[in-house]
Amino acid sequence: MTFKYDNVYLSEVSTVAGPYESKGPFGRYYDKVYNDFYCGTKTWEQAECRMLIDSVDMALYKANKLKQDIDLHISGDLLNQIVSTNYASASIGIPLIGIYSACSTSVLGLIIGSNMVDKDQIRNCLVSTSSHNNGAEKQFRQPVEYGGPKRKTATFTATGAASFLLSSKKERIKVESATIGKVIDLGITDSMNMGAAMAPSAAYTIYQHLKDLKREANYYDLILTGDLGIYGKKILREYMKIEYNIELNNHDDTACMIYDLDNQPVYAGGSGPVCLPLVFNSYIYQKMLDGEISRVLLVATGALLSTSMVNQKLSIPSISHAISLEVTDDIL
Amino acid sequence: MTFKYDNVYLSEVSTVAGPYESKGPFGRYYDKVYNDFYCGTKTWEQAECRMLIDSVDMALYKANKLKQDIDLHISGDLLNQIVSTNYASASIGIPLIGIYSACSTSVLGLIIGSNMVDKDQIRNCLVSTSSHNNGAEKQFRQPVEYGGPKRKTATFTATGAASFLLSSKKERIKVESATIGKVIDLGITDSMNMGAAMAPSAAYTIYQHLKDLKREANYYDLILTGDLGIYGKKILREYMKIEYNIELNNHDDTACMIYDLDNQPVYAGGSGPVCLPLVFNSYIYQKMLDGEISRVLLVATGALLSTSMVNQKLSIPSISHAISLEVTDDIL
Repeated sequence: MTFKYDNVYLSEVSTVAGPYESKGPFGRYYDKVYNDFYCGTKTWEQAECRMLIDSVDMALYKANKLKQDIDLHISGDLLNQIVSTNYASASIGIPLIGIYSACSTSVLGLIIGSNMVDKDQIRNCLVSTSSHNNGAEKQFRQPVEYGGPKRKTATFTATGAASFLLSSKKERIKVESATIGKVIDLGITDSMNMGAAMAPSAAYTIYQHLKDLKREANYYDLILTGDLGIYGKKILREYMKIEYNIELNNHDDTACMIYDLDNQPVYAGGSGPVCLPLVFNSYIYQKMLDGEISRVLLVATGALLSTSMVNQKLSIPSISHAISLEVTDDIL
Repeated sequence: MTFKYDNVYLSEVSTVAGPYESKGPFGRYYDKVYNDFYCGTKTWEQAECRMLIDSVDMALYKANKLKQDIDLHISGDLLNQIVSTNYASASIGIPLIGIYSACSTSVLGLIIGSNMVDKDQIRNCLVSTSSHNNGAEKQFRQPVEYGGPKRKTATFTATGAASFLLSSKKERIKVESATIGKVIDLGITDSMNMGAAMAPSAAYTIYQHLKDLKREANYYDLILTGDLGIYGKKILREYMKIEYNIELNNHDDTACMIYDLDNQPVYAGGSGPVCLPLVFNSYIYQKMLDGEISRVLLVATGALLSTSMVNQKLSIPSISHAISLEVTDDIL
């Protein structure tokens, strides 16, 4: 399902990052950095709430807004019952739409918000997401203290939170169009190879987006998926070519960008719903404002597994959502 | 955040119910009933997927539509990573918005869908939710086989699935307005008393809805909350009066309606995201079509706890969302 927008702009973005992310290539671009996994709280779950609240505060501060100026908050995360979002929201106090779409949360939130802003149903909204490496490991795999080995296709859940402020007030970056994906399941059962599970859904959503808007892939300066990892990225490009006859030459994947893959112990790269927004909000956003790139398609990819379904030996369904951002002269 | 709609109608509804629900007062009104908890599958999680798929198929069948006629599916459930929704969606194959709002999922989905239908961003959408007693007990509390005793304030998670079809095509029941709630946390830590945790959020959302639309509570023939239970229902009415000076005389709660409270072992009543839609879609919907009641405010109430947050002795945040449905002559 593809939407075109006339009236939605990206007003502000914020980033809060954890210890590993701050030592990665974009370390100096994050708005706030924590050097430990507790962020001044007693548990990892509460640390994730803390970062989510920080990212909302930071976005509001940078946009010179108060909470009461914001009509709606759309947010989701990886924890069971999206508790980072829900517990943070009790102190944020903005009407909330809670979503779950694993690592495709950020773009799904941006689409729901853009639809409402575009038709003046709301003046503006914050879209947030977060993840926490140790919290995710404890919940989905094993406590990190066990020191269990991992395969090279595994990814490393990023720690941090990020928020976007959407508004109908004209700004440099316009939200131009978007595509909501379908759940795709091609039978991958290996939860240590989520890039392979997600790549076909990313391919489907990119194909559907280009088809609905009658565009070629090179319409975009950059197609940015997140987070497939080094193996998933390769699979996406091959699958895109074989299945849809589309060459992705202008493509990168945030899982392969967020860390120094040669020197940080992150296997096939980053993951977690915050991975793509940490890369976009810190680095790509600025490149767009600076006029270095003008058309970006963000494709957030989510593996929709749970431990109980993996234990039942079921395969891993995936979904990807895409949103097109464009530098515009509307503001002039 | 309150919305008014001009162009959204409730085209069809469906219900699939489990063994306890089918023996309740609305048993004969459900579209499909399973007499065991497995629904022909091997696990409770897969049984819940089965019921969700059934409810979508049933709604499409009753509306004389095919899957490819539907633009969007909005769905959520209680299981970790909303796997009932996500695994069902792999076979349903309609573009998906996955949401998490605990037992307020149905109305949140209806609001997101109504906003898009109202402005012709989509022609129609299915909104679904599901829950499963044994699946929820295993995940949130203890396996039912343990036979652990419960306090009288506990509720009994309903087993079933329900779908709504929203469309801009004129029908007897119009979606008239809606209010997205805020997360409220007044410090209740007892996960066996979720009615008490949720009542203040229901009160806030009802108050905000009436205030935004400059209405009195008696504007509605029925304000239907779900699912507070017998204690939460009482707390809501008292709290409404003390905090907002509003008398709720036209109020009922689906937790107190779905079972025969005198003869079924359900403690303070039903719960789970499917509780409210099972009651509405089977019984109240027909009463509206028959012209017996014409204005209904559905207020779905969600307790946003998780086991890890309860184990950390944190209190339980809650959220409620409201949607106004009205019998209309638009169709004539």
